Amino acid sequence: MSETQTQDISRAIPVFFLSDSTGISAETMGNALLLHFPDHRFERTLIPFITTPDDAREVVAQIDATMDDGVTPLVFVTAALDDVRQELHKSRAPLIDFFDMHMLEVERILGVRGARTPARLHGVGDVKRYNARMQAVEYAIEHDDGQSVRSLDKADVILVAPSRCGKTPTTMYLALQHGLRVANYPLVEEDLASTDLPRPIRHLQDRCFGIITSAARLHAVRTERRPDSTYASLRQCAYELRRAEELYRMHHLPVIDSSAKSVEEMSTLILQVLARRPRVVH
Amino acid sequence: MSETQTQDISRAIPVFFLSDSTGISAETMGNALLLHFPDHRFERTLIPFITTPDDAREVVAQIDATMDDGVTPLVFVTAALDDVRQELHKSRAPLIDFFDMHMLEVERILGVRGARTPARLHGVGDVKRYNARMQAVEYAIEHDDGQSVRSLDKADVILVAPSRCGKTPTTMYLALQHGLRVANYPLVEEDLASTDLPRPIRHLQDRCFGIITSAARLHAVRTERRPDSTYASLRQCAYELRRAEELYRMHHLPVIDSSAKSVEEMSTLILQVLARRPRVVH
Repeated sequence: MSETQTQDISRAIPVFFLSDSTGISAETMGNALLLHFPDHRFERTLIPFITTPDDAREVVAQIDATMDDGVTPLVFVTAALDDVRQELHKSRAPLIDFFDMHMLEVERILGVRGARTPARLHGVGDVKRYNARMQAVEYAIEHDDGQSVRSLDKADVILVAPSRCGKTPTTMYLALQHGLRVANYPLVEEDLASTDLPRPIRHLQDRCFGIITSAARLHAVRTERRPDSTYASLRQCAYELRRAEELYRMHHLPVIDSSAKSVEEMSTLILQVLARRPRVVH
Repeated sequence: MSETQTQDISRAIPVFFLSDSTGISAETMGNALLLHFPDHRFERTLIPFITTPDDAREVVAQIDATMDDGVTPLVFVTAALDDVRQELHKSRAPLIDFFDMHMLEVERILGVRGARTPARLHGVGDVKRYNARMQAVEYAIEHDDGQSVRSLDKADVILVAPSRCGKTPTTMYLALQHGLRVANYPLVEEDLASTDLPRPIRHLQDRCFGIITSAARLHAVRTERRPDSTYASLRQCAYELRRAEELYRMHHLPVIDSSAKSVEEMSTLILQVLARRPRVVH
């Protein structure tokens, strides 16, 4: 690698994400690569909605200006419009193009040419699917933290856990990104004293997932809310988690540990369980 | 293209998204490409968390089995682990690898070798940033539809609009994906009768964005909620939107039209406005 050049690590490297639509794909893939260079500082600029060759020429001028400082910027591109892409490739900076070559490969495998119109992956797209996502977000808000047990029957997924185990963000993620109707059911003191599943979810066991976390983490999160309360005490947290786990085990709920997992990782695990089940959810 | 082969369009093409982490990047990029083949049916399978060569061998067997049917599957891969990737590349199916070549290019530009450990772009990662995102989701839920005007001062962004113009999903998206604290302010009858901004947001004008939509769409959405009401009537919808637009114009709020835009597109526009302002938000 190092035979070509080694950039000065103390300087922030300019990073551009260019797209003829939102740029979310370029950002996602670009950041997945940048993650492997934890010692570098990057100065990120997103330039979305580049839809004409004129737009593209302006962008190229902006990028080339950074090169006058003697740095080579990283330029990640996803653009379906051929004329826009051609213009962008006139930059003096090397382009990391997630579209071009891979599109050729997909076209080769399918044996047809792709549409290559402005890609609206993150547009409204399939209106029915889009509306389902939006309705799922509303459903999630309505059913956040057991505020409403009405229409729990309509849930695709019910996240069960003691208070503050991190149900809400995962609920929102599954709703927003996957259009799943997700409800929360917070386990309260009475629920934990029993060996039965709480009445409102007893007949819905097949769509329940149990969430646990570590006692230390739950203690920390609850302490922020109510410092020095019994509710936040390490002892109470440990008790609730132990009882919750017993309940999950007894009723064979899939268990997800939120203590070291992101909402994306928890959501992926939940989707995997759903995918393995006979009933196809989405 | 068509000189190599043309797959039977009536059959669904198997599509695999393979990853050593959540697979979200592989899905995002893969779907951005598939979008250009609207006449094909695809049967998508996500296989995340492939972290050992043994896992990879099982996956290859699964993919190669689909080839016995005489179809060539599309296999999109993002895997940072070299031994996993090497194993996956033993598949008889051609792999569309978003990582390999692009990683080499980034390494060449930066002049160092990347870490190539399991990439957790969608893991917890930077804990501080992750916690900010989670707090932003809570903030968004607390401030959904003006339920609480407390701590509006702490909002990064306030979305202003008549009821049912599509504020909530965009709020959740900006919170979950970008860690922005976003509040909603629904314009009610009294607000629309006035030429001033409503009192709770009057001093926060610099972070307000006005949302509009089309009267027809608002009418349709409201009719679902309350059929045949004055509230849902086309006349009332048109009135509210006209007054809202006047209010936005008078107070120089950036205006976003939600009628033909997805939450991702609206969020991108809002981020662009924020990026152009002197105060850097994230």
